[in-house]
Amino acid sequence: MQSSTILLPQSDLPLVVVIGAGFGGIELVRYLPSDRFRVLLIDRNNYHTFQPLLYQVAIGGLEPDSVAYPVRKIFSGRKNFYFRLTEVTGIDLKTKQVSTSIGVTGYDYLVIATGSKANFFGMDDVKNNSISLKSVTDALDLRSLVLQNLEAALLTDNIQDREALLTMAVVGGGPTGLETAGALAELTKHVFYKDYPELDTGKMKVWLIEAGSELLGAMSARSQKASGKFIRDLGVHLLLNVSVKKYDGYTIVLSNGETIDCRTVIWSAGVTGNILPSFPPELTEKGRIKTDDCNRVIGAENCFALGDVAGLTSAGLPRGYPMLAPVAKQQGKQLAKNLVAIQDGKAPVPFHYTDKGTMATIGRAKAVLDFKKFHLHGFLAWTGWLFIHLMYLVGFRNKIIVLVNWMWNYIRYDSAIRLIIRPYRKPR
Amino acid sequence: MQSSTILLPQSDLPLVVVIGAGFGGIELVRYLPSDRFRVLLIDRNNYHTFQPLLYQVAIGGLEPDSVAYPVRKIFSGRKNFYFRLTEVTGIDLKTKQVSTSIGVTGYDYLVIATGSKANFFGMDDVKNNSISLKSVTDALDLRSLVLQNLEAALLTDNIQDREALLTMAVVGGGPTGLETAGALAELTKHVFYKDYPELDTGKMKVWLIEAGSELLGAMSARSQKASGKFIRDLGVHLLLNVSVKKYDGYTIVLSNGETIDCRTVIWSAGVTGNILPSFPPELTEKGRIKTDDCNRVIGAENCFALGDVAGLTSAGLPRGYPMLAPVAKQQGKQLAKNLVAIQDGKAPVPFHYTDKGTMATIGRAKAVLDFKKFHLHGFLAWTGWLFIHLMYLVGFRNKIIVLVNWMWNYIRYDSAIRLIIRPYRKPR
Repeated sequence: MQSSTILLPQSDLPLVVVIGAGFGGIELVRYLPSDRFRVLLIDRNNYHTFQPLLYQVAIGGLEPDSVAYPVRKIFSGRKNFYFRLTEVTGIDLKTKQVSTSIGVTGYDYLVIATGSKANFFGMDDVKNNSISLKSVTDALDLRSLVLQNLEAALLTDNIQDREALLTMAVVGGGPTGLETAGALAELTKHVFYKDYPELDTGKMKVWLIEAGSELLGAMSARSQKASGKFIRDLGVHLLLNVSVKKYDGYTIVLSNGETIDCRTVIWSAGVTGNILPSFPPELTEKGRIKTDDCNRVIGAENCFALGDVAGLTSAGLPRGYPMLAPVAKQQGKQLAKNLVAIQDGKAPVPFHYTDKGTMATIGRAKAVLDFKKFHLHGFLAWTGWLFIHLMYLVGFRNKIIVLVNWMWNYIRYDSAIRLIIRPYRKPR
Repeated sequence: MQSSTILLPQSDLPLVVVIGAGFGGIELVRYLPSDRFRVLLIDRNNYHTFQPLLYQVAIGGLEPDSVAYPVRKIFSGRKNFYFRLTEVTGIDLKTKQVSTSIGVTGYDYLVIATGSKANFFGMDDVKNNSISLKSVTDALDLRSLVLQNLEAALLTDNIQDREALLTMAVVGGGPTGLETAGALAELTKHVFYKDYPELDTGKMKVWLIEAGSELLGAMSARSQKASGKFIRDLGVHLLLNVSVKKYDGYTIVLSNGETIDCRTVIWSAGVTGNILPSFPPELTEKGRIKTDDCNRVIGAENCFALGDVAGLTSAGLPRGYPMLAPVAKQQGKQLAKNLVAIQDGKAPVPFHYTDKGTMATIGRAKAVLDFKKFHLHGFLAWTGWLFIHLMYLVGFRNKIIVLVNWMWNYIRYDSAIRLIIRPYRKPR
């Protein structure tokens, strides 16, 4: 019944196929003139995910619906725009065809904006037994796992088992790891002791394990120092200069030989480009797709890569741009202009990143913020963090709902959404 | 590692085991004096579900988190209260023991408050291919299925297939069926045409199929007439005096021999007591547990049934009390008093239901309301419906979030939460 070609209305306009509705893909489509191009946007979800707030879904501070936004609604009323909910199964750069689970499409321009995925550095046991925070389902899985382990702790009379069920470890001291560890520490302190009076929740431990010598490696020394103090004040057990070597679901083995019994491990120790399995490996390097400084994939015609998955070579950055939402958004906007230029036979303009600063929040009223030579930490940085995240959240309804939830959580010391709607089960 | 007995702190107080955290179970525990009884509440979810608003989760008007509330939070700070997240696997009324997936517990008093489940009248094909709205996961499944069928409609060039994917049928013209059909009709009218400009959403059809000669069989003739007009005005195709005989996932076969090709069927044509498989069938009748007018299970000692699952015999009602939240809540409150009386060696007081009226809403600003001799329909009844549902919703945060969403949906004609977070797959 399904045709093998993805059905689109006829048109003479060139067809841009965009894979991925993340920050980069959405921004590109937003700035592409709808009277110059047809756009086919493909994603395996029917929504855009606001990844920076996923950890708040995991800790029950926000509904999943607040950090996701339907793609069709973003581009409601836009001409020559088509969205398809499917997964890409193959890319043929020579015949210019993309295969998906619902059929094949040709393209005039192909944009790969598939983002990044967790990097487990080949450790399959860690991959199979820990949760990373890259999707809404990840966040809901973590929420369920934390609560399931608390319920399970009620059922055992073995003291070591109970403590392992009450122990959580966050691996990786970047912004996501720091934010997650801080939020978990606050949950144990302000919420769980009320919900689980039968448990000695004073025995709940949150570990934060960072391989480098400082938290927030990409930020200023002042922010690193401040964040270390904030996270220790929250009662998080901080380990620096050690990495995780093994995790079988029960015991973490560290690089210094020490071990931690622990049933909840959150992995945020590294990301790598989310390169489609069917993409030619010779066009990739260090987990990203090789591109020139105009996002053109080197070695392919009319093919572009954007954001986390793109490794821009000529920028003088040995490891490419940082994998951040602002980089992806700025590249998306620039690529929209460049596609118009290329279509008009003009030269595209190389990408330059405007660094608008970086920030991370720790716990309920602390944050660190770097902006060029300017550093801020504490309550004021936190209000800045709140404001900026609210501002960038897609959709006015979502902004209101998030604001209500944040006010509630702040006033009541209560992340209220402690529901196990679909129990977490380990992937096979 | 897990002991075969559910671990509870030692105490001399009598132990009340309550199965089910629905309206009846929650109300019972709320009114049981915490210094007279220990309570072990068992549910397969860690939250209480506000079932009357599940259909709004299904149509994307509310987040699932808004209609569910953590059980532990309801009873936060309560003494001698224990909650266990598990399923009951067996009941031995002679030895007074309840078996669960996490172990066995004895009891002094057992209260069965397991509510109701959809009644498919033995039609397994209908059961396997339709969705009923009894749980948060049901509601999310329906939300996903409606959106998945719209996405699938984009992929076929067969006109009949496409129309079947765009057709939805609600079976059963009680409050839930009416509310769901009305909300789906509004979605097609105000929302989907914007999201799916490629589809002729004018071809989307919503059927409402009722076996009786009127909608809202339990309400007044005036309300029945008004609701029929309201639902037709919304464009719903109303079929009265016919029932569904078969549904294979593709085609509905009606009792008059006619058929409807349709890929989304919502079943709300009947409910029956949710009797645990391990409960002795000789103590049940017509899908409910036989009790006297004090909720005591006839033929068992110190065992009680509450709400939808309880068939009170001596009330002069041949089919028992209606399966409604207010009945369950009033019985819960009364049983709390009766358990104290029984424990004190006094006689329990028979249950009498105070009917506070019934209501149903149809679409975005219409409702019908019966209160004794008083009937109201239209906008005023709708504001009454909103107010009462907000009032009874558990939790202040939930009330605010629901209010914000309702205001948003009303002003913007937009049920914003159109996310397929976990795709619906047919149960095997």
